[in-house]
Amino acid sequence: MTERFNVAVVGAGYWGPNLARNFAASPDWNLAVVCDLDLQRAQQVSDRVGGVPVSQSLDDVLADPAIDAIAVATPARTHHPIVMAALDAGKHVSVEKPLADTVDRGAEMVDRARANDLVLLTDHTYCYTPAVMKIRELIADGSLGDILFIDSVRINLGLIQPDVDVLWDLAPHDLSIIDFVLPGGIDAATVAAHGADPLHTGKACVGYLTLPLAGGAIAHVHVNWLSPTKIRQMVIGGTKRTLVWDDLNPQQRLSVYDRGVDIAEQSKVTTTDARAANISYRLGDTWSPALPEQEALSNMTAEFAASIREKRTARTDGASGLRVLSVLEAAKSSLGAGGAPHPVQNTTIERVS
Amino acid sequence: MTERFNVAVVGAGYWGPNLARNFAASPDWNLAVVCDLDLQRAQQVSDRVGGVPVSQSLDDVLADPAIDAIAVATPARTHHPIVMAALDAGKHVSVEKPLADTVDRGAEMVDRARANDLVLLTDHTYCYTPAVMKIRELIADGSLGDILFIDSVRINLGLIQPDVDVLWDLAPHDLSIIDFVLPGGIDAATVAAHGADPLHTGKACVGYLTLPLAGGAIAHVHVNWLSPTKIRQMVIGGTKRTLVWDDLNPQQRLSVYDRGVDIAEQSKVTTTDARAANISYRLGDTWSPALPEQEALSNMTAEFAASIREKRTARTDGASGLRVLSVLEAAKSSLGAGGAPHPVQNTTIERVS
Amino acid sequence: MTERFNVAVVGAGYWGPNLARNFAASPDWNLAVVCDLDLQRAQQVSDRVGGVPVSQSLDDVLADPAIDAIAVATPARTHHPIVMAALDAGKHVSVEKPLADTVDRGAEMVDRARANDLVLLTDHTYCYTPAVMKIRELIADGSLGDILFIDSVRINLGLIQPDVDVLWDLAPHDLSIIDFVLPGGIDAATVAAHGADPLHTGKACVGYLTLPLAGGAIAHVHVNWLSPTKIRQMVIGGTKRTLVWDDLNPQQRLSVYDRGVDIAEQSKVTTTDARAANISYRLGDTWSPALPEQEALSNMTAEFAASIREKRTARTDGASGLRVLSVLEAAKSSLGAGGAPHPVQNTTIERVS
Amino acid sequence: MTERFNVAVVGAGYWGPNLARNFAASPDWNLAVVCDLDLQRAQQVSDRVGGVPVSQSLDDVLADPAIDAIAVATPARTHHPIVMAALDAGKHVSVEKPLADTVDRGAEMVDRARANDLVLLTDHTYCYTPAVMKIRELIADGSLGDILFIDSVRINLGLIQPDVDVLWDLAPHDLSIIDFVLPGGIDAATVAAHGADPLHTGKACVGYLTLPLAGGAIAHVHVNWLSPTKIRQMVIGGTKRTLVWDDLNPQQRLSVYDRGVDIAEQSKVTTTDARAANISYRLGDTWSPALPEQEALSNMTAEFAASIREKRTARTDGASGLRVLSVLEAAKSSLGAGGAPHPVQNTTIERVS
Repeated sequence: MTERFNVAVVGAGYWGPNLARNFAASPDWNLAVVCDLDLQRAQQVSDRVGGVPVSQSLDDVLADPAIDAIAVATPARTHHPIVMAALDAGKHVSVEKPLADTVDRGAEMVDRARANDLVLLTDHTYCYTPAVMKIRELIADGSLGDILFIDSVRINLGLIQPDVDVLWDLAPHDLSIIDFVLPGGIDAATVAAHGADPLHTGKACVGYLTLPLAGGAIAHVHVNWLSPTKIRQMVIGGTKRTLVWDDLNPQQRLSVYDRGVDIAEQSKVTTTDARAANISYRLGDTWSPALPEQEALSNMTAEFAASIREKRTARTDGASGLRVLSVLEAAKSSLGAGGAPHPVQNTTIERVS
Repeated sequence: MTERFNVAVVGAGYWGPNLARNFAASPDWNLAVVCDLDLQRAQQVSDRVGGVPVSQSLDDVLADPAIDAIAVATPARTHHPIVMAALDAGKHVSVEKPLADTVDRGAEMVDRARANDLVLLTDHTYCYTPAVMKIRELIADGSLGDILFIDSVRINLGLIQPDVDVLWDLAPHDLSIIDFVLPGGIDAATVAAHGADPLHTGKACVGYLTLPLAGGAIAHVHVNWLSPTKIRQMVIGGTKRTLVWDDLNPQQRLSVYDRGVDIAEQSKVTTTDARAANISYRLGDTWSPALPEQEALSNMTAEFAASIREKRTARTDGASGLRVLSVLEAAKSSLGAGGAPHPVQNTTIERVS
Repeated sequence: MTERFNVAVVGAGYWGPNLARNFAASPDWNLAVVCDLDLQRAQQVSDRVGGVPVSQSLDDVLADPAIDAIAVATPARTHHPIVMAALDAGKHVSVEKPLADTVDRGAEMVDRARANDLVLLTDHTYCYTPAVMKIRELIADGSLGDILFIDSVRINLGLIQPDVDVLWDLAPHDLSIIDFVLPGGIDAATVAAHGADPLHTGKACVGYLTLPLAGGAIAHVHVNWLSPTKIRQMVIGGTKRTLVWDDLNPQQRLSVYDRGVDIAEQSKVTTTDARAANISYRLGDTWSPALPEQEALSNMTAEFAASIREKRTARTDGASGLRVLSVLEAAKSSLGAGGAPHPVQNTTIERVS
Repeated sequence: MTERFNVAVVGAGYWGPNLARNFAASPDWNLAVVCDLDLQRAQQVSDRVGGVPVSQSLDDVLADPAIDAIAVATPARTHHPIVMAALDAGKHVSVEKPLADTVDRGAEMVDRARANDLVLLTDHTYCYTPAVMKIRELIADGSLGDILFIDSVRINLGLIQPDVDVLWDLAPHDLSIIDFVLPGGIDAATVAAHGADPLHTGKACVGYLTLPLAGGAIAHVHVNWLSPTKIRQMVIGGTKRTLVWDDLNPQQRLSVYDRGVDIAEQSKVTTTDARAANISYRLGDTWSPALPEQEALSNMTAEFAASIREKRTARTDGASGLRVLSVLEAAKSSLGAGGAPHPVQNTTIERVS
């Protein structure tokens, strides 16, 4: 039987209870302690998982040699100091998104994890849903061919947030998913962001992101707090097949269309007009893969353990969190500049090392 | 009984037969002649409507004092000379979209029609469907309140056109509809266009348009030739209600949601954070108005006759064609500039007179 | 402030915990005790609601003068003795469906409750969902006009039950809902039941019920354990409007169609052929009422308290449970007779008193 | 190149024009003459297909040795004399449904065709749609396994017919499709029919048919003229897979679910209760086959020619028309008897020969 790792959940607010419940139920983990400055809140989380120890002191937790890893669910601005301290104490770390409050601080965290040979996992929870894991698999095994476009829509009546606009509130979901399913992750050199605040709330309530991808492809995200119709849909067009993910249709979440536009091979060297003439349609079957019923966070805890055990980076590693953060920062600049495309900071781990 | 007007259909290609059929069936019109350089083609059109006279000579048609109006369905680059000649001959004119091949020529046509007191109608056929006419009515009578956002999606597998990109092929539908339903028409000062050509066909096959509207609202259009899933949907959010038009759902094309985000009145003078606290949700009924079964072109011929009879501009007048053309030209420039927002030429009739 | 009634939950198996949770959370009730022969099971239920007293003895519970009511969630064959004892001890009773294991025993329970002036509520939980309560209201206020037909479909992959067939497993939902929304309840004089057991499990896995209603109307129920497509839909046609309830469409559960078939008034005395000529269609709007988010069981506990307080029968009283049971018994006989219609035992309270 | 057969279309009413158009466009056929007692009506049909000869005399048509076949589209009560005369004149025959006005007359027609070695095709047009042809193929090749149940729903606002009830108006579609896709056709020994006439029109406007099939399977049909919601859906459950045909969803008409209920093999000899314990679920992929765009009548004319050329019975032969007619007649008797199951006349060709 495999040994269990000891984990401390740090932060007992909104997301901490979910982390605690999933680590407690995992065969890979032993939930060793719940840590929060507010001890009563830590105790409430502990009570719901059968009463594990609680602590008010992060220092104590990090000083404990029995602790293998920490799962950080504190406000974004505290991620940098907590994660850096944990990495310096030799702990593996999972951290809620966004990775950090600035790209520079996030890059420092990624570097430190690498330097210390520790796992740093960004908890892009959505990536661990069965649907998204299946999409990643279908792209990785070539089922879709080369990716031509990704169009993601996430709209609903949403509470207007006091501190962030709709892009920072909702688009991280879409961006982390796009980063997860694309081999190599998001590689956009620029991003253009458009927003509107028609209710004059002081921040964008409707937002659009456009990201040119390598090879002429494009990704586009529409997020919206003001729509009474709820849509959560992503269309991913490939040279071989096209996939539609409709997250609100539990009976058929994923549809893979064996249809598309073909270009006759010889035309690739001909002139534009000749090419147009050589384009034809393929009308094939549609296929909807069965998806297992799994909780995303349970898959995340398994991946966290596996990456530690196998001494590799996690599927949603620090670098992925950094790429998402870089796009969001660039989007903010583009929005401020009236929608002109803005360069995305090149934040590959190679850059900083 | 009302007198019928005599109309000549000019151009017997793709759209001419539809015009001929509808004018022939209209109680307002007498289809007097079908005119085309290719007399055989004109005859074929004539045969299908019971054998009206045909002509090869536009000059003859325009010289005939019995002809009240002409309906032009020739290629876009010929619209300017044909329409100008007709207006100078004192004929009312309906013309296929796009109004002209450049904004400047289009503006000249609009001016001439005005100067000569003649009707110039741009045949934005979609605007005459029962669904779009109902949307216009619901906005005009205040049912939706102030418009906050318009999001239009028109995607499908589409034949890649030899001469135009996806924006010029499909977006005119969306733009003409938006122009039609907004009181005062599209008033965007700028447009940002993003496109992708991932199959390297030489022109954009995926396109996005973003138009900031007056008062902080926004319009957005997504057109796509590469999607095997067909979507034709427009969401129009207002301060009072939100409307969804799903053109592929014949059983419920229009849904009006009496739901939305409310801002408490007193908060309008408070700070941003205070505002957020005063925003609340309204979850009311949904309502789907019954729509009559009507052919759009039949409604167009009726409007053409009514505007002549009542000596007023048509609902889809030359100015509306000019506004749509201006947005398309600006979009082309934005696309060429990598997506940076581009000013829309101010083409109101007042400007040119 | 209104006084709270003291209630004992009897039976801590599958449904008991839900009852306990809702009574505990209700402003109308004080959950006084959880009673089960298996004390450990009772304790587990108690723990989840903050630790109320538990008991192994029904006699003790019934002997306690502080207890106003009991909520019975024990196996069907035990309903009769438990409920009769409770009624004789002067307690109000809510009881899980089916009311009893035979119509005769059920009738005895209904009589006793009436004789003792006590409330007997059958827990037809589905009737307390916001959708079904709205349907009842729309029929009661005349919005649908006279009811012409009710067609109910409830199909899904379902675990084949060891003791009951698909009719007894699923149709009680449909029948109790139909009974609830029809003013006066189900008044079918006969029922025809058809079933199939194509997997040779020893009991019907596919079932159909047909119930002629008063005035020439009809109700029909389709239940099926073998369908991989899940459908839960009820269509209720009326002379004025028709309602569709799609329980799997949370965005639009109820649709009311202001469409239908009209018969010209004068034709009602004419011959059949003349009538046909006088029938016309009405194509009006569709309307989808907003529904509140409420837990059905919470509404049930409120109704139980209200009926006690107002000294009236409950909306889902014993008589309704008896009508549903009578239809099920008759259906069993019809099924045994190869589908020939079988009389439904006349079980109105008037009959037995 | 294959020789074309000469066909006469007999009857120029509602359906005749469609037959004429499809025979005229077929590579297998030469439309030789259009025959109707009303010569003007015949001429109108002829005009629309380029002007073929017309005739008022069926005798002349049948006496013409150049005519290979006739396609009969006259009222049902005239089918028997026309078809018998044509068969005696040595002509192959296609005939509109219903095959005849009584089962006995239909049986005589089937016998005569057989005796004279001529093709007799019942024009069950729906069977020649791509969707239904695909369903037949999927059942024939074993993709669905053994059929467990068929549930067909065809409801809509429908004009109340002067001469037939809803069962005779709509159910022939469902029955002919079920007969077509089941290997061996409908083999029900009895049928139970339930109907309702809540508007007192003198005939059933809501109808249900239940047909026990061989091996414990069941078929059920729901037809309804009074529903404002249009549904055309057929669910076919098999031991291996289940198929759903939604004819109103052009984007995904057929869905094949690789899901179902499995029974462990060894349990087949055990007791009922043991069996229940051995039943489990299979949750596999869903698959939607691409369907070609084809007009059903065009496929029918091809099949008519192929069956003549290959000297075999047609896919929708006279016997299939006879089976559908037998079920309808039995349904009428069942309806008259208040819904008691009624024997279906055994009308296999073997019986009468």
